[in-house]
Amino acid sequence: MPTATLSEPLSDELFFVMARASAIGSSHANRALATLQLKVREYSALVIACSDEAPTQRELSRQLALDPSQIVAIVDSLEKRGLVERRPDPRDRRSKIVVATEAGRELSAEARTLSAESDQESLSMLTADERATLHTLLAKVAFA
Amino acid sequence: MPTATLSEPLSDELFFVMARASAIGSSHANRALATLQLKVREYSALVIACSDEAPTQRELSRQLALDPSQIVAIVDSLEKRGLVERRPDPRDRRSKIVVATEAGRELSAEARTLSAESDQESLSMLTADERATLHTLLAKVAFA
Repeated sequence: MPTATLSEPLSDELFFVMARASAIGSSHANRALATLQLKVREYSALVIACSDEAPTQRELSRQLALDPSQIVAIVDSLEKRGLVERRPDPRDRRSKIVVATEAGRELSAEARTLSAESDQESLSMLTADERATLHTLLAKVAFA
Repeated sequence: MPTATLSEPLSDELFFVMARASAIGSSHANRALATLQLKVREYSALVIACSDEAPTQRELSRQLALDPSQIVAIVDSLEKRGLVERRPDPRDRRSKIVVATEAGRELSAEARTLSAESDQESLSMLTADERATLHTLLAKVAFA
């Protein structure tokens, strides 16, 4: 991971600081999830596939802000491991939805625990109030 | 860019929300910087090369949280355009530092204006106080 060098010229730029914070969080989470052979992106897709949303690949792409080709690779990898299935979309038979299998749900539950622990670690320098404030402000930007 | 769909299962996770907010900011900035044929990562490397830090490629890699191979590609691209030069590092002659040229400094100044405008847009839903709070909290995470 990057060391704590503060680059004066860029530390004024909020989105530069955000990208660094985000890279640190992902790096911690990737290390934590490696014990389950999952990367953060696969984990995120799996969690959405476990929800009631019955996402299409296009919806996964939008939610995770990844290219459709990246989503195909992620879903292929999860499907090969028997964690998700592609099924016809009841709303549009030409489209497919991505649904977690029982094994996928079990792994997802374990992964959520690891991810939450990792996030606590990455945010250990903030008080509970500061974390809540940060979360609220980020959600305003992310879901404007 | 991703639409404002809120994925309930993941919106509880602070780093997921941060990754989305970060993707939205980068996407805006990439659009703004495209008029100067710059991407956010090239812009960031250029700004650091303009500073007094005289960074090596290794230092750029750490500061931008990118792989050394990604940094080489970015510096190659900036060098080909005459925006930066690789020079021997006075602290270690086997190593090279990356220094902006005059043309690089001029382009960097224009790019900073565009980047700042883009950030204002991406953060338009926040008050000035909220932006300052967000910046402070992110810096605690990014430079812990």
